[in-house]
Amino acid sequence: MLIVKKFGGTSVADKERIFHVAGRCAEEYKKGNDIVVVLSAMGKYTDELIEKARDINPNPPKREMDMLFTIGEQMSVSLMAMAMNQLGVPAVSLNAFQVPMYTTSNYGSARLKRIDSDRIRNELENRRIVIVTGFQGVNKYNDYTTLGRGGSDTTAVALAAVLHADACEIYTDVDGVYTADPRIVRTARKMAEITYDEMLDLATLGAGVLHNRSVEMAKKYGVPLVVRSSLNDAEGTVIKEEVKVERMLITGVALDKNADRISVIGLKDEPGIAFKLFDTLAKKNINVDVILQSIGRNNTKDISFTVADTDLEEAVQAIRESGRFAYDEVKYKTDIAKLSVVGAGMMSNPGVAAKMFESLYNEGININMISTSEIRVTVLIEEKDAEKAMNAVHEAFGLAE
Amino acid sequence: MLIVKKFGGTSVADKERIFHVAGRCAEEYKKGNDIVVVLSAMGKYTDELIEKARDINPNPPKREMDMLFTIGEQMSVSLMAMAMNQLGVPAVSLNAFQVPMYTTSNYGSARLKRIDSDRIRNELENRRIVIVTGFQGVNKYNDYTTLGRGGSDTTAVALAAVLHADACEIYTDVDGVYTADPRIVRTARKMAEITYDEMLDLATLGAGVLHNRSVEMAKKYGVPLVVRSSLNDAEGTVIKEEVKVERMLITGVALDKNADRISVIGLKDEPGIAFKLFDTLAKKNINVDVILQSIGRNNTKDISFTVADTDLEEAVQAIRESGRFAYDEVKYKTDIAKLSVVGAGMMSNPGVAAKMFESLYNEGININMISTSEIRVTVLIEEKDAEKAMNAVHEAFGLAE
Repeated sequence: MLIVKKFGGTSVADKERIFHVAGRCAEEYKKGNDIVVVLSAMGKYTDELIEKARDINPNPPKREMDMLFTIGEQMSVSLMAMAMNQLGVPAVSLNAFQVPMYTTSNYGSARLKRIDSDRIRNELENRRIVIVTGFQGVNKYNDYTTLGRGGSDTTAVALAAVLHADACEIYTDVDGVYTADPRIVRTARKMAEITYDEMLDLATLGAGVLHNRSVEMAKKYGVPLVVRSSLNDAEGTVIKEEVKVERMLITGVALDKNADRISVIGLKDEPGIAFKLFDTLAKKNINVDVILQSIGRNNTKDISFTVADTDLEEAVQAIRESGRFAYDEVKYKTDIAKLSVVGAGMMSNPGVAAKMFESLYNEGININMISTSEIRVTVLIEEKDAEKAMNAVHEAFGLAE
Repeated sequence: MLIVKKFGGTSVADKERIFHVAGRCAEEYKKGNDIVVVLSAMGKYTDELIEKARDINPNPPKREMDMLFTIGEQMSVSLMAMAMNQLGVPAVSLNAFQVPMYTTSNYGSARLKRIDSDRIRNELENRRIVIVTGFQGVNKYNDYTTLGRGGSDTTAVALAAVLHADACEIYTDVDGVYTADPRIVRTARKMAEITYDEMLDLATLGAGVLHNRSVEMAKKYGVPLVVRSSLNDAEGTVIKEEVKVERMLITGVALDKNADRISVIGLKDEPGIAFKLFDTLAKKNINVDVILQSIGRNNTKDISFTVADTDLEEAVQAIRESGRFAYDEVKYKTDIAKLSVVGAGMMSNPGVAAKMFESLYNEGININMISTSEIRVTVLIEEKDAEKAMNAVHEAFGLAE
């Protein structure tokens, strides 16, 4: 078996945890498996680096930020190799140059383009555990890039894809994917299996366990994903193309409190306006979600949509500076939350949205915007109502244990 | 003018010093010069990394140590680029992969083999200050290597050589090369000029300002070196092939307290014994100095020599485990010091050694071993006498200001 294992920052935060991970990998190595480990930077190290940089330059060049960021993962992988060596297991650490892993050129939010697997294969053939830096890549200029949020998960899935790994295990501080965030919904239940599409919607909608990019990539290349805890040996949740068990109507409930709403008021009601608006944002690499268009007055219309709160400022500025379309006003609201129910079962069941709205109505929660896809229903609500709403919906669909 | 400037760890230890260096470089850049900056890791960061590693593995693999070490310089160069950017000067940081700088394969003590200058030249043509990681390289396996002691100086000189730089400035915490260590000899005088050979002997003998590898390389490629202070604008000392000023008999006095003496007693008096002994040490990359061979009893001989104190243990062990030659006993002594007088002028003046011995005799200092070359005389003395001896010799040759 060839297994790719990804451990996040908390799993390698200190000496003890490093040895815990090293021991776990050593065990599986000794059974004869080939092990590739992908690591993030230790604990809060990336935050420390951001602070160091900002202290010197409040608005540092992105190229240099990526140059600085990459040392975090390089520290993790070299220390992990030393720990495995200490346990008597041969191991070698590799950074983005050494693999190599090529990406697009945009610093801070690059996408993986090509991974050469020769070096890793050679090391595996020599029976070494291979420890690879997550989150980072090299662009065509031979400069370091980073993959943005969830980057290390993406690295792990991509490596599993090019190596045709038997499994890609993502270790986190929760022991699987739940029907809702168990910190908010006490009765949330861990799922044994879930499809890529369901996970994709959960991830996109803020379930937080996996980043959507890594799930998209896993789906595209058919990489079997497992989400499990780095702290215990519980089974975790398997994510794959099809699940065999009888499906519930709804798989899970996801909450995203990091969304902000932007409304562009008084756009001209003519063809191409929506294109110009969202193209302006796309060119800045800003993802938008939950789009709502409404008729305004005097041949105008209003378009509202949500963006991640980290993108709010840039998005508003981009709209104001664009000059490609006329409008009256840009408004935004930050104290909102996105609540979604997700499930492949809802495709053949028209009552899902109604049931969700009813459960919110019963709690006196106002719905701000609505968006639906084949396998999900998303509503925008006030942030203060978020946890009450999540519990209500979770119960309404009988997801509790 | 193309100028290579090297700053050590203390010069980039914190935000203030980083901006001091950035400002200094920006000033010269604005005059129209092309600037290449070589940096070490910040302050004591390399020591911190060693501690981190040892905590996990007391005897970490050298390959992984180098992987860990290189992040120190990468942090320095990216933060420096941000500082220059903050000052409005375009700058780009490059690590060993990006230049690239190729070395031999021995981790921890690699030697530079080849530097591609294309990337640096392109960046300079685009009017950017180029900031390069010192101390590190990449070997034929695409693994990181480090250059060992004085590595960043060597990087700077090598870059100056391949770029045909007009000057290679080494910034340190002293403002030039002195006739003796000014912390020990109060009357020591800063020299305006000194030849490569003299500097080489001073460096080898523990003057501490520059590592001999960097001076050797500067001599080989004719790179004009300047040693000057990062704290003030004083002129510094120029090191070159020939100096025009009327030469003093002696250029300087050097003291090395980090030398230990090893004696191998009762070696067979037959051809090849010295070769086998020193070959054994050379294979371990251990440099020896001040060799003395004396006749023992019964067709045996004793060989004594000095090594750096960091090599003592490995040297003694290598001799004991070699099996290539028979001997009675290995002894060593650690409380010794090497005192040397250096000067191109002494070649034509036979009285130098005698004068040195006389000044030591006047102070009642016992000489343990003697070694001479064309431009230096070195004696081994008790460590406790070192400073008194240095002052006596410095005065005897009239080196004081």
